[in-house]
Amino acid sequence: MDKASQLDSLFFPRSIAVVGATNASFFGQYPRVLREFGFTGKLFAVNTKGEEVFGLKVYRSVTEIPEAVEAAAIIIPARFVPQALEECLAKGIKAAQIFSSGFAETGEEEGRALERQLEEKAARGIRLIGPNCFGIYCPGGGLTLLPGGDFPTESGPVAFLSQSGGHAVELSRQAQGRGLRFSKVVSYGNACDIDESDLLEYMARDPETRIITMYLEGPREGRRFLELVRKTAPKKPVIIWKAGLTPLGSRAAFSHTASLAGEEAIWDALFKQTAAVRVASLEELADTAQALLTLPPSTGRRIGMVGGGGGISVAAADACSRAGLEIPPLDGQVREKLASILPPAGTATGNPVDLGAPIVAPPIFEGVLETVAAVDSVDTIIATQALFYVFRAGDVLAGTDDFAQSLLDAVVRVNERYGKPVVIVLPLGGEEVEMAEAEAKRRKARDWYRERGILALPTLERATRAIANVVDYYDKVGKRS
Amino acid sequence: MDKASQLDSLFFPRSIAVVGATNASFFGQYPRVLREFGFTGKLFAVNTKGEEVFGLKVYRSVTEIPEAVEAAAIIIPARFVPQALEECLAKGIKAAQIFSSGFAETGEEEGRALERQLEEKAARGIRLIGPNCFGIYCPGGGLTLLPGGDFPTESGPVAFLSQSGGHAVELSRQAQGRGLRFSKVVSYGNACDIDESDLLEYMARDPETRIITMYLEGPREGRRFLELVRKTAPKKPVIIWKAGLTPLGSRAAFSHTASLAGEEAIWDALFKQTAAVRVASLEELADTAQALLTLPPSTGRRIGMVGGGGGISVAAADACSRAGLEIPPLDGQVREKLASILPPAGTATGNPVDLGAPIVAPPIFEGVLETVAAVDSVDTIIATQALFYVFRAGDVLAGTDDFAQSLLDAVVRVNERYGKPVVIVLPLGGEEVEMAEAEAKRRKARDWYRERGILALPTLERATRAIANVVDYYDKVGKRS
Repeated sequence: MDKASQLDSLFFPRSIAVVGATNASFFGQYPRVLREFGFTGKLFAVNTKGEEVFGLKVYRSVTEIPEAVEAAAIIIPARFVPQALEECLAKGIKAAQIFSSGFAETGEEEGRALERQLEEKAARGIRLIGPNCFGIYCPGGGLTLLPGGDFPTESGPVAFLSQSGGHAVELSRQAQGRGLRFSKVVSYGNACDIDESDLLEYMARDPETRIITMYLEGPREGRRFLELVRKTAPKKPVIIWKAGLTPLGSRAAFSHTASLAGEEAIWDALFKQTAAVRVASLEELADTAQALLTLPPSTGRRIGMVGGGGGISVAAADACSRAGLEIPPLDGQVREKLASILPPAGTATGNPVDLGAPIVAPPIFEGVLETVAAVDSVDTIIATQALFYVFRAGDVLAGTDDFAQSLLDAVVRVNERYGKPVVIVLPLGGEEVEMAEAEAKRRKARDWYRERGILALPTLERATRAIANVVDYYDKVGKRS
Repeated sequence: MDKASQLDSLFFPRSIAVVGATNASFFGQYPRVLREFGFTGKLFAVNTKGEEVFGLKVYRSVTEIPEAVEAAAIIIPARFVPQALEECLAKGIKAAQIFSSGFAETGEEEGRALERQLEEKAARGIRLIGPNCFGIYCPGGGLTLLPGGDFPTESGPVAFLSQSGGHAVELSRQAQGRGLRFSKVVSYGNACDIDESDLLEYMARDPETRIITMYLEGPREGRRFLELVRKTAPKKPVIIWKAGLTPLGSRAAFSHTASLAGEEAIWDALFKQTAAVRVASLEELADTAQALLTLPPSTGRRIGMVGGGGGISVAAADACSRAGLEIPPLDGQVREKLASILPPAGTATGNPVDLGAPIVAPPIFEGVLETVAAVDSVDTIIATQALFYVFRAGDVLAGTDDFAQSLLDAVVRVNERYGKPVVIVLPLGGEEVEMAEAEAKRRKARDWYRERGILALPTLERATRAIANVVDYYDKVGKRS
């Protein structure tokens, strides 16, 4: 049986023994955080001190627990971990998350030797995640990362496999605001047993998971990983942020998870040979996952760009060029129609269409959007809406919230009428302390769009990159509709 | 007399005639916005209709105004502008901002012919800004852009010369939150008379201006511009965002301000031959201006990086590598000292120093910062502070505002004690609507730092790029201290 088939005990354990449960450390509070999150299985506390913690009776060893135990979470100092695993094996525990650090990532022989001992225990039939990790967030199994007691409890279609615990926590947290929901987030650290290939194999089969995202420093089994990506990506998008490719990053990756980060050329080849989507930051990873969930396979490279302020149009055109998107010129008839809608001065009827001002009256906005959506050579529409001018009191352009709502409604109507994807750029209005209220309204507008299947991102660069990643993916897998 | 010497009438006019003043258009409200902003000179309204607007008597022509008038602002449709300028010349008006569009940027012969007429008027001795622009923000002269009635009224050391009105407004607005203050912001549009070279020449001499920033599509006089940049940049930093270099951007630049954007190779040469700082976005332009105002010339390339979460360290190292910064390894003695301060597990004493968690107790944070600041081979410190974990209620790591304040105080103390620049990364905590309050606190922390001369930016990428731009500048001009 391959390792990937043995992971259900990790993601959906009926019972967990927490070895090192204590109120005195960050990770020691795992039982409390699990309960807070809503884990409904049995919890056992194991510790060498005390009688009770978090209302749980304390056992000296997992072997003392009088019932069967499916999984363990291990938090004790590195040198005690091999013995604890020995006891887990004796108890018949099937899988363990090892949060403890102090193994190969230290770069010292002592740590490497300890990690080899973990590998030996794993070889005898217990599946291990870690060491040096933050564990698993799996809403369906009632599991969460640390800190993550307040993460969303509903499952979603995105898996995130992260060699970094920090990024696992950060993405899970950010995702709340974006409305992204996860099937599984795994921080797998040093990957002494279960590595990115095993996890990728599991997620490829996992019915909960529709999109696989990864943060990688260096995969353990290069060739196997490449083959798995090649096979998986045409069926489920695989989005990869490969870090540590610069000389300094490579050194840091080694001291973080003892990874050999590899050379840029090897990674260039991987992305060329497979349909994996390459991203360069956590932000782009999340944007792209969201775009793949929102935009249909018909999303194309030919952009109809609508925005206010000519300089913004130049920046938009530059951003499209850089992302590999196109801005087809509009023909005379379309330009005439746009001219009949727009005020004559300060506007431009080319593509990008320059509305002349960052906010215009809703009928003008809708008329322009509609005209551009009707153009055959336009696949996808990007429109900027500087709603902060509306939300910000005291502004020359200030309208009411109803005015803003009319602008939002216009987008949804055009999207429904023409069936062409519309991506909205909702810029931040300002960074003043006093703008926090307007910012909250901007976020509400973004959420409102999301509920209606429309992607809204705060900058042109992020919008163009996310669209380009989606188009590239569907081009590679030949799924154009 | 060169044109640059004639610009005082534009920036500090004792009186302004607004030709086209009306409540019925966006630009027409210029007199109201000027009064709101605090312009204390004389205002005259000129219009062909009505008797009174904004409480001002309406004249049919500037020639009817019974007093001397120094400057004009022209808002009427393009075809009427030449005649209005003729009347300005007759009246002895020295300078005019022309907001009107419909000239060369239309790409039509009619617009080009109209623009040539403006050039002829200018040749007879009136200085013109525009057409197709948003005008001038000059707090010292009581002038503001549209919309900008609420812009800060105090002057500052930064000039922004922008071919785009949208970017001029956006930067002026953003800058409020950043605490950046301006000497002059000029949206100069098609530059039929006063162009970027004239403005650069003026700002080079302007005692109010210490840093010159520019958004350029295509300069009118390439060779003169190059020479001016070469002469000016060693004395006052010149930060340039050159847009429209991609094929699509170049087309958009033409329809925006009738600019020929030029080839990338020419611009590469300009940045190689001069000390001008090249930036790629409005955000990087503002970050770099702020960094040049905040960081001393001793700021160096060798970074001591302090942060929590190993994956963040890898990203930090990658970001440094990409920006051309270095992360020198720390010697055994320093690492031992760090090991004595940090908890043993999950931390790393290399460079980047991994604190093991995004937020640690203030004495640990200060001890680490101090140890790194004392290292001879470290010039500049970057520290990440995920304060949102503190500001966000209900978090496992949650502390109080006092706890956050102790973390802020630690930075200021170390900065004062070691005299080495510290740049703080203050990440956004989340994008949920509910996080707006925590975000307001984060902004307050940023402002608190700023008042103490410490640069705080929201991401590692922005921090490393801003530092690298400052180091590159001082390397180029040989001003290292």
